[in-house]
Amino acid sequence: MKIIKYPERVDWPELLARPVKDFKEIKKIVKPIIKKVRQKRDKALRKFALEYDHVELKELQVSRQEIYEAEKLVSDELKEAVKQAKQNITRFHEVQIEKELLLETMPGVVCRRRSVPIQKVGLYIPGGTAPLFSSVLMLGIPANIAGCEQIVLCTPCNPKGKVNPLILYTANLIGIDRIVKVGGAQAIAAMAYGTESVPAVYKIFGPGNQYVTAAKQMVSQEGIAIDMPAGPSEVAVFADDTAQPAFVAADLLSQAEHGVDSQVLLVSTNESFVKKVKTEINLQIEQLPRKDIAKKALNNSLAVVVHNNQDAIDILNLYAAEHLIISIAEVDQVADRIINAGSVFLGNFSPESVGDYASGTNHVLPTNGFARSFSGVSIDSFIKKITYQNLSADGLRNLGPIVEKLAGAEQLDGHKNAVSIRLKYLDENN
Amino acid sequence: MKIIKYPERVDWPELLARPVKDFKEIKKIVKPIIKKVRQKRDKALRKFALEYDHVELKELQVSRQEIYEAEKLVSDELKEAVKQAKQNITRFHEVQIEKELLLETMPGVVCRRRSVPIQKVGLYIPGGTAPLFSSVLMLGIPANIAGCEQIVLCTPCNPKGKVNPLILYTANLIGIDRIVKVGGAQAIAAMAYGTESVPAVYKIFGPGNQYVTAAKQMVSQEGIAIDMPAGPSEVAVFADDTAQPAFVAADLLSQAEHGVDSQVLLVSTNESFVKKVKTEINLQIEQLPRKDIAKKALNNSLAVVVHNNQDAIDILNLYAAEHLIISIAEVDQVADRIINAGSVFLGNFSPESVGDYASGTNHVLPTNGFARSFSGVSIDSFIKKITYQNLSADGLRNLGPIVEKLAGAEQLDGHKNAVSIRLKYLDENN
Repeated sequence: MKIIKYPERVDWPELLARPVKDFKEIKKIVKPIIKKVRQKRDKALRKFALEYDHVELKELQVSRQEIYEAEKLVSDELKEAVKQAKQNITRFHEVQIEKELLLETMPGVVCRRRSVPIQKVGLYIPGGTAPLFSSVLMLGIPANIAGCEQIVLCTPCNPKGKVNPLILYTANLIGIDRIVKVGGAQAIAAMAYGTESVPAVYKIFGPGNQYVTAAKQMVSQEGIAIDMPAGPSEVAVFADDTAQPAFVAADLLSQAEHGVDSQVLLVSTNESFVKKVKTEINLQIEQLPRKDIAKKALNNSLAVVVHNNQDAIDILNLYAAEHLIISIAEVDQVADRIINAGSVFLGNFSPESVGDYASGTNHVLPTNGFARSFSGVSIDSFIKKITYQNLSADGLRNLGPIVEKLAGAEQLDGHKNAVSIRLKYLDENN
Repeated sequence: MKIIKYPERVDWPELLARPVKDFKEIKKIVKPIIKKVRQKRDKALRKFALEYDHVELKELQVSRQEIYEAEKLVSDELKEAVKQAKQNITRFHEVQIEKELLLETMPGVVCRRRSVPIQKVGLYIPGGTAPLFSSVLMLGIPANIAGCEQIVLCTPCNPKGKVNPLILYTANLIGIDRIVKVGGAQAIAAMAYGTESVPAVYKIFGPGNQYVTAAKQMVSQEGIAIDMPAGPSEVAVFADDTAQPAFVAADLLSQAEHGVDSQVLLVSTNESFVKKVKTEINLQIEQLPRKDIAKKALNNSLAVVVHNNQDAIDILNLYAAEHLIISIAEVDQVADRIINAGSVFLGNFSPESVGDYASGTNHVLPTNGFARSFSGVSIDSFIKKITYQNLSADGLRNLGPIVEKLAGAEQLDGHKNAVSIRLKYLDENN
């Protein structure tokens, strides 16, 4: 971790710049995969399963029997932990449901807005060494609360044709029963365009490797909505000497272990504190099974020493971190001055990992600076809002003449006429 | 307008398919424009102004003097109409502000979510024959209510270097004072990457021609958020013989006059009613100044006769129209069964044009079937939501052991350790 002391504001943007990833080469690989899935559907999925996952699949969909068997493989202790996470996430997402708006903007002009679930959604859950069942919770729970009619979950299986039991247990617990054994770019293509086993959906959610990311980007250009643009996971920590160096080191490492491209940023007004954190990192990193990954990630990471809290806040708002931990004396005064971040963790006892799993907030968050304009996943991500207007005859009498003038000024006579013809009718049939 | 009687469900998707537009050729033209603007900034904007708008511009930004002069050119009557529209739109958007969420999901685990305005937004308003000042209202008002710090409006000027006075009047009325004379793809590039006159923004809004659309699509791939994917404007009308054929004809024409690629769909359970509408269209179309455009649009449009209301609702939900007018006897029973639409107009006295200008709802709506997964522009479009969590020592004692188990199950020991190290500290310092 490189320490930068009191950088000039003019140098901040370059200092905080994320590595730019070129998806050109990856897209060249993904494009024919998407094409194949559109053409050959399940047949293509089976072929890719053989090619990439080294498994011959007869049935692509996970059976009830497989779910039943998976449940027996998960310890009761772990089940209880998943249930508690589910409860907290459910609670915090249920309160996000918005009530309908109804307003008479002018006499006789009633406007309304209601939330409607997106009918068909697809959730992608990566396989691999770490089974990301927590993403099943973070996507499946709000999809269910929102009321999405059809939820399909795609996840790769192992060479024996089995999906990780914890993923199956979690999916079943939250009521997702359509689980299909398909991973990678082919899964995204299947959900975008539909196959015999995978229904086409209107919006695709979930993390994934660069092929999955590229595929999501590509189908989003063709009219399939996606949750948000993806980038490597990030944490920024703003700490002073009221924080524990060991805690901060652990937080930075918990992000660094995600992947070699993970982004880690420490901001502090206290140089000696930063040095203590660095020492702690060197101690703790050796204990981590994923230390090689964490070391590589830390090589690209920064600690910035700034003059005061205002500088820290400004630099953090410029960076717009996915996760931001604030562990300083004046935490309460600072919290609401953060205007660009995905999720914020306040105080000494709120490590990022509580939000990753079970505090109740969602862990699908905007990376790569997208927190400047995007929110994390929430109930909002699974609904859209339809507006209505209902004008009585009097309502049109009140509003119509105004609309006639405005449409006329835009030289849209057809628009004007749709009002005029009705006003004339009302006049004649009074 | 082609009449299709009782089509089979299996044929609906093809029947309702929108024309697919290939942006490949357009992107080839737009790409060097974007590159030039990134490199040469204002100099490039001046060069393109000369090339495309045939005007030599010294100052790109509209001056206070120009705004003052523009105000004198707008009639008092029109000013009053704009103000009334502003009032209705303001009212319906102000009620969209969400209050902060605060919830203790478990004892000592406090989660919070607050809305924060997107700091910097850019609004694009096309020039051309019809000055779309209504889009200034529809974008500028919610941007202001949301509290966006910096709002820049780009719009092309005429060969005399003047921006349409009604656009200037409206922008000034709602408090947008940074107006820059730049149009087309170059305006989008300027807002995405910044020039001396145009500040770089985090999200770009607004309609435009195919070059603008392509440029928005392209910059959105590089991390600039955009309001929504664009497509030709659309209306679907669901009417029975309780509707007035003349009204329905006027509504269809008001959409058809937008552009030759406008989409118009009539759905009815009553064949003779459809024929009456067709007759009315032929009468009314001749009166429209934009009749040539309307005729071309109608050539590609459909009237579908169905057996019953359920079929109509299903076909309309499949189509997912930007604008949907429902003018049938059972309008109240049907309204909430619409699950895919941008904005819905109910009854005989709610033509689309009231929503286009002044009922209070927003007119920037998802086209091209995107209403299945996207909402129209609203306050939501100008904010993002940041979540917070704050755990007390007891909160971490309650939640920590659960997180340890879950992180362990995902084999993320760094995540687990960030909790364990704190629990151990609490244990030792009790």
